[in-house]
Amino acid sequence: MPSFTRFETHDVRFPTSRDLDGSDAMNPDPDYSAAYLIIGTDAADGLEGHGFAFTIGRGNDVQVAAIQALAEHVLGLDVDTVLADMGATWRLFVDDSQLRWLGPEKGVMNMAISAVVNALWDLKAKRAGLPLWDLLAGMSPEELVALVDFRYLTDALTREEALAILRQAEPGRAARREELLQKGFPAYTTTPGWLGYSDEKLVRLAREAVEQGYTQIKLKVGGNVDDDVRRMRLARETVGPDIRIATDANQRWDVSDAIAWVKALTPFDPWWIEEPTSPDDVLGHAAIRKAVAPVKVATGEHVQNRIVFKQLLQAGALDVLQIDAARVAGVNENIAILLLAAKFGVPVCPHAGGVGLCELVQHLSMFDFVAVSGTTQDRVIEWVEHLHEHFLAPARVESGAYVTPTQPGFSAQMVPATLTHFAFPNGAEWAPAQLEVSA
Amino acid sequence: MPSFTRFETHDVRFPTSRDLDGSDAMNPDPDYSAAYLIIGTDAADGLEGHGFAFTIGRGNDVQVAAIQALAEHVLGLDVDTVLADMGATWRLFVDDSQLRWLGPEKGVMNMAISAVVNALWDLKAKRAGLPLWDLLAGMSPEELVALVDFRYLTDALTREEALAILRQAEPGRAARREELLQKGFPAYTTTPGWLGYSDEKLVRLAREAVEQGYTQIKLKVGGNVDDDVRRMRLARETVGPDIRIATDANQRWDVSDAIAWVKALTPFDPWWIEEPTSPDDVLGHAAIRKAVAPVKVATGEHVQNRIVFKQLLQAGALDVLQIDAARVAGVNENIAILLLAAKFGVPVCPHAGGVGLCELVQHLSMFDFVAVSGTTQDRVIEWVEHLHEHFLAPARVESGAYVTPTQPGFSAQMVPATLTHFAFPNGAEWAPAQLEVSA
Repeated sequence: MPSFTRFETHDVRFPTSRDLDGSDAMNPDPDYSAAYLIIGTDAADGLEGHGFAFTIGRGNDVQVAAIQALAEHVLGLDVDTVLADMGATWRLFVDDSQLRWLGPEKGVMNMAISAVVNALWDLKAKRAGLPLWDLLAGMSPEELVALVDFRYLTDALTREEALAILRQAEPGRAARREELLQKGFPAYTTTPGWLGYSDEKLVRLAREAVEQGYTQIKLKVGGNVDDDVRRMRLARETVGPDIRIATDANQRWDVSDAIAWVKALTPFDPWWIEEPTSPDDVLGHAAIRKAVAPVKVATGEHVQNRIVFKQLLQAGALDVLQIDAARVAGVNENIAILLLAAKFGVPVCPHAGGVGLCELVQHLSMFDFVAVSGTTQDRVIEWVEHLHEHFLAPARVESGAYVTPTQPGFSAQMVPATLTHFAFPNGAEWAPAQLEVSA
Repeated sequence: MPSFTRFETHDVRFPTSRDLDGSDAMNPDPDYSAAYLIIGTDAADGLEGHGFAFTIGRGNDVQVAAIQALAEHVLGLDVDTVLADMGATWRLFVDDSQLRWLGPEKGVMNMAISAVVNALWDLKAKRAGLPLWDLLAGMSPEELVALVDFRYLTDALTREEALAILRQAEPGRAARREELLQKGFPAYTTTPGWLGYSDEKLVRLAREAVEQGYTQIKLKVGGNVDDDVRRMRLARETVGPDIRIATDANQRWDVSDAIAWVKALTPFDPWWIEEPTSPDDVLGHAAIRKAVAPVKVATGEHVQNRIVFKQLLQAGALDVLQIDAARVAGVNENIAILLLAAKFGVPVCPHAGGVGLCELVQHLSMFDFVAVSGTTQDRVIEWVEHLHEHFLAPARVESGAYVTPTQPGFSAQMVPATLTHFAFPNGAEWAPAQLEVSA
């Protein structure tokens, strides 16, 4: 019986702040980073599970320490037992009563759990010889609800309601699986819209996005309202009336600011306003949504767990729900959130970008399409060009759609050279800069 | 000009799980711990600032790592500048755009900020020769609102409204300060009610509590409803009809469970139900409160920040607001929360216990009484007997009231021997146990 023998963490950071890639109103100079985990076993197959939490630089070491705190819940356990009941396994991490105090179920500890849970799913999918989306989409409704912790959800979604949603989608699974393999899943691109880019670069990249087949782009807003109106007008003039332009304030505003700012942009027909205020502010989002309609309200990349998503849905605070693959507690909690969204009839359009988030989250949207919501109507996955070259099985977009991954696993695995070259602070990418500082 | 020269962290853990002190429905075996910080300067006065985050064992090392991630925002800075504008200083930590990604403003990183901010307030109060409550209560309304970040609050509380609250309380400050020094601040005791205690111990401790002058005790509930009904009946029979009995479920229930369970206890007249469900569930608390009235709903010890407190108040989800001194981002954020509570007319009854939480939070309630709410009506601070001997200036309760501290500082400083004896994992308290395990 194989057991878990390796739990190896890496602090991997990319110097993205040097080019202002990823710059927005709240995050002017991110260094995209991964608190990266490799879980190994003594099985003959030699397969590993890879997972990570995404951060934007400082604090990636804290995130690594939080992942390490979970090692004792993995090392030495029987691999088959752990992977056979991923619902029970999820609870091992989330229900550690001492670690729970550090959240509960939020922030650094929840992101650490996401890394471990996702790494175990990566391994489980590799052992099954299936991409994760296909592994999940092949599970029965009963197996899927067994992955979900309904605690704190039952006033909005019970196990029985979740089962009913999954059973309703069952008959069409095979046809949608074929459609997915042929057509992929719709994407939108954030590449043109970073705040740090010049008007010329914005216009050029927006034009290229349309030429490449995208039907939706996104602009970062929230720095200066006059600049945003000018950039939004330029973007609208460039792409024409039929391309959707989402906007993203990255939590910059209070409620009244958000309403006024969105109204200033409304003449240029924004499709949604993303993160208009604090991700913790359910009632604030509800007030904003009421005031800015028909502009849609989107949020989720910083929403800490299923309990806050539940309330966003209960309060009618959302038109678009944006899951993130590595902030809530991994695949299991995201399945709970997909089911909540289905119950409330709200489309899920994942947050991606960063490093590796496109790779991970595509699997969740594809599973959602095949086995939960059953549709791609108004569903798009964010696409950002950066850093895909660091992955063994990089996500790919062609003609405005994610190409459905077929390699076994969760597409989480980085190339080995990246783990050494970008290791912080002693990898080749960072060590010279350190020497300059101390010289 | 003195600067900060020392930023020294300690992983301090107490083996409280051995006696089931602190056992409740969600936390069966806590080892009360502190991720402890000493900030030193090169000033001639030799004064240090002490602060800590409270955890319950595993993960205290993660919390220490998070505090260390803030060292670069303190070391080398000018002491006078940092302490002169504590509002700006608070933003140094909270607005680090890279670290912010790890929250934002929640969980491990926010608790780390609390340790640093509180340590700086400890130092500032020592330099002023005043206990913290008195330092704060001597600041002008303008100085106090400058400590508060109103971001994400303005739909419920503006700077002008906060100023008006503080100005209204100004005339009575001197008289209330005298009253406080003479009478102390009302306390209630959780000591009788831990879930791990026998019925006999519960009855004995409840009787002793009344004899000692307490007018309120608290029982942990949420393990088994029949046990809780029996324990609640025993407690009510022991203390009579005039003593308030608070109950505390420590997040054990979903909304419908909470309502049913509280109704089963209602014949025994519980004063409040504390943490009936997830601390993240604003709408859940509102639904429970509506259903269980006149039993009051209390929460806050795990509420992550001012934004969630704002919504609990906006939604009418709370009768009693329970601040914690070391979970939100320190003194500054707690001042924001005290002002929110005053705006909505909700009494603040702090969470305490653990290790050092009584010592810290007494200062905040006393400041609230003198300079914000102006009353102790329905206000009580939790009191738990454990671990006070580890502090240089331990909190004290006499005749059911906290004795107002008069020593300069925030009462945060542990005795030096504790930092070495209880150091984890190599202090004398822990090293022998380790040897046994590996033998």
